[in-house]
Amino acid sequence: MIGKLGGHDDTIVAIATAPGIGAIAVIRLSGAKAVTIADKLFPGKDLTQQSGHTMHFGAMHHAGRVIDEVVVSLYRAPKSYTGEDVVEISCHGSPYIQQQVVEACIATGARLARPGEFTQRAFLNGKLDLTQAESVADLIASNTAASHQTAIRQMRGGFSRELQALREQLIRFSALIELELDFSQEDVEFADRTALYQLVEAALTEVHQLIRSFKAGNVIKNGVNTAIIGRPNAGKSTLLNTLLNENRAIVSDIAGTTRDTIEEVLNIGGILFRLIDTAGIRESTDAIESIGVQKSLEKMREAGIVLYLFDVSELSADEVARQVEEFEGGGIPYLLVGNKTDVMGEEVARKKFHAFPDVIFIVAKGGNGVRGLKDQLVSQVMGGEINTENTIITNVRHYAALQEVYSALQDVKRGMDEGLPGDLLALDIRRCLHYLADIAGEVTNEDRLDYIFSKFCIGK
Amino acid sequence: MIGKLGGHDDTIVAIATAPGIGAIAVIRLSGAKAVTIADKLFPGKDLTQQSGHTMHFGAMHHAGRVIDEVVVSLYRAPKSYTGEDVVEISCHGSPYIQQQVVEACIATGARLARPGEFTQRAFLNGKLDLTQAESVADLIASNTAASHQTAIRQMRGGFSRELQALREQLIRFSALIELELDFSQEDVEFADRTALYQLVEAALTEVHQLIRSFKAGNVIKNGVNTAIIGRPNAGKSTLLNTLLNENRAIVSDIAGTTRDTIEEVLNIGGILFRLIDTAGIRESTDAIESIGVQKSLEKMREAGIVLYLFDVSELSADEVARQVEEFEGGGIPYLLVGNKTDVMGEEVARKKFHAFPDVIFIVAKGGNGVRGLKDQLVSQVMGGEINTENTIITNVRHYAALQEVYSALQDVKRGMDEGLPGDLLALDIRRCLHYLADIAGEVTNEDRLDYIFSKFCIGK
Repeated sequence: MIGKLGGHDDTIVAIATAPGIGAIAVIRLSGAKAVTIADKLFPGKDLTQQSGHTMHFGAMHHAGRVIDEVVVSLYRAPKSYTGEDVVEISCHGSPYIQQQVVEACIATGARLARPGEFTQRAFLNGKLDLTQAESVADLIASNTAASHQTAIRQMRGGFSRELQALREQLIRFSALIELELDFSQEDVEFADRTALYQLVEAALTEVHQLIRSFKAGNVIKNGVNTAIIGRPNAGKSTLLNTLLNENRAIVSDIAGTTRDTIEEVLNIGGILFRLIDTAGIRESTDAIESIGVQKSLEKMREAGIVLYLFDVSELSADEVARQVEEFEGGGIPYLLVGNKTDVMGEEVARKKFHAFPDVIFIVAKGGNGVRGLKDQLVSQVMGGEINTENTIITNVRHYAALQEVYSALQDVKRGMDEGLPGDLLALDIRRCLHYLADIAGEVTNEDRLDYIFSKFCIGK
Repeated sequence: MIGKLGGHDDTIVAIATAPGIGAIAVIRLSGAKAVTIADKLFPGKDLTQQSGHTMHFGAMHHAGRVIDEVVVSLYRAPKSYTGEDVVEISCHGSPYIQQQVVEACIATGARLARPGEFTQRAFLNGKLDLTQAESVADLIASNTAASHQTAIRQMRGGFSRELQALREQLIRFSALIELELDFSQEDVEFADRTALYQLVEAALTEVHQLIRSFKAGNVIKNGVNTAIIGRPNAGKSTLLNTLLNENRAIVSDIAGTTRDTIEEVLNIGGILFRLIDTAGIRESTDAIESIGVQKSLEKMREAGIVLYLFDVSELSADEVARQVEEFEGGGIPYLLVGNKTDVMGEEVARKKFHAFPDVIFIVAKGGNGVRGLKDQLVSQVMGGEINTENTIITNVRHYAALQEVYSALQDVKRGMDEGLPGDLLALDIRRCLHYLADIAGEVTNEDRLDYIFSKFCIGK
């Protein structure tokens, strides 16, 4: 654990709920003076005498006026989110009142919190390790079942436990190696080399799996840019509507969820497919067309996946072949989707395009085959099925550190293969442990911490 | 107090904080089953055994998954906002999680609350009278110091107390009159007619004052549509910038306040002046101009006030006279503002326009005289100074009822002047009392109540 850093002794305040008008809003204070400040704003309530985890209704006064009738919730250190004394003021949800409450707190001795500062304090006070703290921001940003489950597992310590197990094994290994060093003159081997070798191999497998999960993790966390392209009459809007219609119904029922976020976004199996503007992508498939091809390719490369939709009656197998060539040549991930199979019949269509066994045949209008298309979309971008039961890496910082761990572990293994002396092996093992500690935030310096937390929203 | 109405026995749930992403969000449950529902979602917490005004940290489970780690706040009837058992679930502020929490509550036996239903229950359970309940919506919508102070005074019972005092006087009067009726054969007068007459006159004055305050109340609550017009080079944009610049600084400092609401809105002395689109208003002042005059007038009539800005060097007194004639003829409230007095000097300008003593002379660029202009604007639309220390009527329902009260009081007074018998006076007094009770919600029917609360936001 890192000790108290500078600037963390004062009492901070911020609006903790979403901006705008709501029935209520919550303003949060944290720090040694939190209760004293609240007490001054609620004369006669004697808040300093109240115990933690209690709520108090009253009128909030400042500068001789009543600001609002509110509920004050008290948390006493260390039993609070930050580990400090925390006061939450639940006021009426007018932005004007929220602002007045914050200003009153500032006038009474608090200062405005920086983004993520509450969670940073929770981390500094040992309430969360760094991966857990980071998952709080992911949790708040989560907008699908998959991103939510991944973040909450991480916040509840799933990833931390996995790393901890790995570290304990390596520390044991390292201790034995270092012990050998102490007796290096006597040329003994305390560490059973076979067992150690197996340990390193197991660790390599585990770390490799975590690293591999980052592709899926990134998709889960950030969604996938998706382009649906094809000739004008291929049925793009029909397909889009079929996909969107099913989807909208899930999200729009509950009042209070913003609709903005679901515009032109498909949630398929918990993965968000964000439809990118394909206006710039030419609608013709003629590879010969010279002007705009380059631009078109660039646009398509922005997409994590391109859905190439064609009318099975209209296009020839050769035309599809030319398009495939273009995708392959440009390194563009794609799915081929043959539409309107009801006109010629799916069997006939399969024969016509037998050279492309991966074509997904659908009837966009009726919805036939659209389910299979969705499954294909998900498995294509995830590189396999989603399994949120496993630990999935979603954070680029963790990903980078795990790659360092992996490389160090490979060096250890190579060293053992080559019969390197224990002191050299120990160096690589220490490198491993350093990066594992870095992930948990134990060796991370202040500037980097500030940067990590600055990406949070205010009030958290 | 009205008894329990139908449909108010079940347990309701809604997101209480503003929609969108925040650090935290609050979901509120109210009703007999609120605690039981929460208890099912937090296995092992034994919430049903916990007392009110306490908070409990824990993992919220539903359908075999952890939805979030949350804080549950318990309120026990009748010591809660609604007067029923209330549970507030404070979760991470992702819209996805908020939705999951609401869905879990619904799956466990709650139903989605209608807009204003929490406050409606508070009213039905006698926690607030109707004017107080109505002020809650005003408080949430308040966006200036003046609208905030007016709403909070009303919520804290200021208006109710004033009405109550009036009712008590009238009830005493009425009781004496009715007593006379019982002894009508004997031709006695229990009620001292002189004292009663004074009472009615005092009541008339008081009700008249409340009715008069509605103009100011409406301005405080809804702001004033304002048009700044004048010839192209009169300095409209300069004035606008001078007014806006001072203003913006106040609002934009605190994070979490939306900027949308302050675009093209001036907050002067706590009153919002909303600048209406003057694109349709001709920029020339020539009254002779025939086409568009009518349209122009209509546009100006939309404004609560028209600021007529002119360059003192450019316009003649005659031209101003023609413009004034147009305003007066059209019944348009206006202020005359003479700009660029620095060029000819203010003394010369005053002499030139001596026929118009109300002209406000300014230098829009430097800001000279702009303060006086602001004061004039406020006093013009408020019909005098703002005094939020007095009770101010902001609600059109109250306004209409008070007019009925006033008319009934006038009938009582007239009746006494004409020596009408007590039984006729009693009728008018009862009419008075009926409307006063209506304001407080004591004789208001269910449909009307539903209508009143339906204008609230969800979650309040």
